[in-house]
Amino acid sequence: MYFATYLEDGKEKVGILTNDSNKIIALTSILGDNTPKTLVDFIADCNEETLNKVKGFIENNEESIEEAVGLDTVKICAPIPQPKRNVICLGLNYKDHVEESKRTLGKQIQMPEAPVYFGKMASDIIGPMDDVNSHAGITTEIDYEVELAVIIGKEGINIPINEVEDYIFGYSILNDLSARDLQKKHAQWIKGKSLDTFTAMGPYIVHKSQLPMPVHLNLSCKVNDEIRQNSNTNNLIFDIPYIISNLSKGMTLKAGDIIATGTPAGVGMGFNPPKYLKSGDVVTCSIEKIGELVNKIK
Amino acid sequence: MYFATYLEDGKEKVGILTNDSNKIIALTSILGDNTPKTLVDFIADCNEETLNKVKGFIENNEESIEEAVGLDTVKICAPIPQPKRNVICLGLNYKDHVEESKRTLGKQIQMPEAPVYFGKMASDIIGPMDDVNSHAGITTEIDYEVELAVIIGKEGINIPINEVEDYIFGYSILNDLSARDLQKKHAQWIKGKSLDTFTAMGPYIVHKSQLPMPVHLNLSCKVNDEIRQNSNTNNLIFDIPYIISNLSKGMTLKAGDIIATGTPAGVGMGFNPPKYLKSGDVVTCSIEKIGELVNKIK
Repeated sequence: MYFATYLEDGKEKVGILTNDSNKIIALTSILGDNTPKTLVDFIADCNEETLNKVKGFIENNEESIEEAVGLDTVKICAPIPQPKRNVICLGLNYKDHVEESKRTLGKQIQMPEAPVYFGKMASDIIGPMDDVNSHAGITTEIDYEVELAVIIGKEGINIPINEVEDYIFGYSILNDLSARDLQKKHAQWIKGKSLDTFTAMGPYIVHKSQLPMPVHLNLSCKVNDEIRQNSNTNNLIFDIPYIISNLSKGMTLKAGDIIATGTPAGVGMGFNPPKYLKSGDVVTCSIEKIGELVNKIK
Repeated sequence: MYFATYLEDGKEKVGILTNDSNKIIALTSILGDNTPKTLVDFIADCNEETLNKVKGFIENNEESIEEAVGLDTVKICAPIPQPKRNVICLGLNYKDHVEESKRTLGKQIQMPEAPVYFGKMASDIIGPMDDVNSHAGITTEIDYEVELAVIIGKEGINIPINEVEDYIFGYSILNDLSARDLQKKHAQWIKGKSLDTFTAMGPYIVHKSQLPMPVHLNLSCKVNDEIRQNSNTNNLIFDIPYIISNLSKGMTLKAGDIIATGTPAGVGMGFNPPKYLKSGDVVTCSIEKIGELVNKIK
């Protein structure tokens, strides 16, 4: 099940891809008019029965679904364009990225003994094909980071490692764009990570039933035609069960929370000289079984 | 104008104190049934005309207001119990607190050349008289930090320093509780700052018309009967106009955003040996012209 938020005739809808992945159908067409209006509210509300109904509908209507429309006739948005809380990100969660960060940021970067969490103000997340603002005069060091994002499915605190999968709704691709100059200047990272348009996500949230634990997926990032990042989530220093269990110690996670699990080596900052993004560059973040997230720098 | 969120007969309401500060009246009694249901929505919606109406009503009804109820008959909550985005905090924004942090955290702490921002997951903010969870087994180093909080009144990006006051709605008291062990362990601060119940705010949001720029207010923090922090916001390294202008560079601030401006010396971590909070301790954060925020450690 590939869930999406999209604009059809200027109206924001929540839908699911048909089996051939060429069309999308609004959840209201399957579940009725009382279906929550946003994907985050749908996630918070949904139960086994709802999911089975959606799944059954998609599987039993392979040939043609009257209400489905071609993907080329709608605009796919970020699946959660307005999250209710900041995105929670992990820094330094791939060994090769820790090494490249040490080389460029110096000795204060160490192989982490505990997850390095930070928050990203991202009350407006941009979707696939949306432009990234280059913020001329504010930063000259815009960087990309492809990450697997985990979307929490239900509220939980002190979640045991072996129960983590119960609390997950699904997975998506997130580009954790960064202004490296501001990230360094302000010591803590939030400011350099939170400029407008600096969180891109999509195109879909893939339901966890399609990506059983352990979630080992190839992920890569291309700038124009050059592959810059290329790894697999089995290289995570702290894996998904550990992260969610650890993060939830004393801190309630909520349905719709987005956790970005970190980025592998190959970010612009890691090259000598650095390869920061410039106007016109097209960044393509790909994760196996999820899709491609493409954004252009304005 | 002292705005509050409160529970009356189990129902959450938004109101304003009467002139003698002994009673509270629901905004719906002044502005009608279409008044936004939360203070954050009221702030986003309100304009000069609305504010004048509220102000006029309070001023012209000094003697007795029929619909007002005694403060002792309601429960005052955090003025914004569910903010739409994480609280934005400043670290290291009083010189004497930078010095005490250097002594305890070591050389990596420096007098900041730019504001040190971090985020606090605080989708549930506790109010005055609410208990702080001691999170046994998760932290043994709970600390207090009294801070002046600024509440943004309207959306803005790249706000010029001399226009900052236009974007402020008002001010409140915030206790930025911290688990120092987790703050150190996870390198970035969000995890140690975001345990459930670790943001306390209130009792009121004082409208900016009562605290004209520059906002120079005495602030202090008492643990039981011992005064631990005692300073004035004129000691801020980065003052309110600078903070809001700087923070808004490339990043849209929204109505209802809460910005905690940092804490002066005297936090528990700064003593030798440290004086962390323990079960039963009562923390009283006071700021002149705003009030007192009292919370007990469970």
